[in-house]
Amino acid sequence: MSTHPNKHIVLIGAGNLASQLGITLFEQGYQIKQVYSRTKKSASALAKKLKAEAIMDLKNLDLTGDIYIIAVKDDAIEQVAKQLKLKDKIVIHTSGSTSIDSLRNISKNYGVLYPLQTFSKDKKVDFKNIPICIEANNKTTENNLLQFAKSISSNVHKVNSHQREIIHLAAVFACNFSNHMYTIAEAILKENELNTKILNSLIEETANKIKTNSPVKMQTGPAVRNDKKTMNGHIKLLSGKKEYKHLYQLISKSIQEH
Amino acid sequence: MSTHPNKHIVLIGAGNLASQLGITLFEQGYQIKQVYSRTKKSASALAKKLKAEAIMDLKNLDLTGDIYIIAVKDDAIEQVAKQLKLKDKIVIHTSGSTSIDSLRNISKNYGVLYPLQTFSKDKKVDFKNIPICIEANNKTTENNLLQFAKSISSNVHKVNSHQREIIHLAAVFACNFSNHMYTIAEAILKENELNTKILNSLIEETANKIKTNSPVKMQTGPAVRNDKKTMNGHIKLLSGKKEYKHLYQLISKSIQEH
Repeated sequence: MSTHPNKHIVLIGAGNLASQLGITLFEQGYQIKQVYSRTKKSASALAKKLKAEAIMDLKNLDLTGDIYIIAVKDDAIEQVAKQLKLKDKIVIHTSGSTSIDSLRNISKNYGVLYPLQTFSKDKKVDFKNIPICIEANNKTTENNLLQFAKSISSNVHKVNSHQREIIHLAAVFACNFSNHMYTIAEAILKENELNTKILNSLIEETANKIKTNSPVKMQTGPAVRNDKKTMNGHIKLLSGKKEYKHLYQLISKSIQEH
Repeated sequence: MSTHPNKHIVLIGAGNLASQLGITLFEQGYQIKQVYSRTKKSASALAKKLKAEAIMDLKNLDLTGDIYIIAVKDDAIEQVAKQLKLKDKIVIHTSGSTSIDSLRNISKNYGVLYPLQTFSKDKKVDFKNIPICIEANNKTTENNLLQFAKSISSNVHKVNSHQREIIHLAAVFACNFSNHMYTIAEAILKENELNTKILNSLIEETANKIKTNSPVKMQTGPAVRNDKKTMNGHIKLLSGKKEYKHLYQLISKSIQEH
């Protein structure tokens, strides 16, 4: 375990990302001084795991930390930021779609540490291979953040706010929207009392293929081979589901245009 | 290696699925008597791998086989079926969306063996864990097919033609449509000169999560938490791409309705 020059962390937030990040930092030898959450239950549960103090009011914030991590929902960042005054402490948020500027009134040194992953509270994530995008308002803070990010991941990228927004948008398609395709597939099977597990190996192989190949070249199925008979059959099967039918038609058309 | 009562196979087709299935059967000790393809190059290449005879005309079909596998494109099955007369030999197709009835004029014993996977010619697939859906026109053929399918996969399901069509439709969403979401993500990153590999671990985790959890419960991102600010920002980024913008709005709406 290496020693970290910025070793005292204050964690603002106790959700999925805050939990996973906090646990990783704790295991890497960082000292988590405090965990803030509006609800006592969340703050206490995470604080206990991290041997930290739980606080429910930002007025009780410990001002002797090195790095303050705001890991709350995107639309709560502004609200939290308003309540913080941290002089020259490093303060960062972890959001893909929030500008670095949202932190400019808190401290002289601020930035972003955006881990590109989907986090669930109870599913432990190995940060080692997760891409982390960092951005800072000055060179010193950038170097500090770079070192900090590299202590938990071997896949760190410097990006500006616009690039981060683009990456976040791409991630919505690759993660949230593909997950919704799984959701629709599951719904179709369930409605017909078929076992949803039957798709698991197909989903795994589809995701695996594109590690070494461009997805546009890996496309299979009725749309890409313009198999109208099969597509019409599917649309007929979806006739009672206006929303799915519309999506089927629009995505098939988009596949054919690529 | 076990001995197979129906050990002599004739393979009609030399595409991705025919190749992968042929190689698996060959490795399992089946004798592939012939490989048919309209093009000499395809027929010869696969026949060589399987120590089989290559034929380009169905008039030269060996009539002493046990199982005849039609593994051609869905819209070519009918065309091939018209040219076959096989009395009581077992003849099957491998299509998700084609009715078993398409084979009724060929033989007294016919059926379907639909492996639920996406096949690329050069990427070897392990059939052991691939779900295989079978259907037959009578009990004896069903038992024969069941035994045949179980000799290559430990995940065999009896389904009727309607159920198979439903499974195929669900697979289009789970595989082809999720792959198209990867394609769009890649296009967005490329247009902004960003490294497309940055999404790999996110895609892997998204696919992994649903092995043990329902995808609808695993959904994350701006749509499911109704984060209008982020969604509006994304739609603005997509303003020059009418098709992506439309998909973004429609899929986000669908996520919110689930």
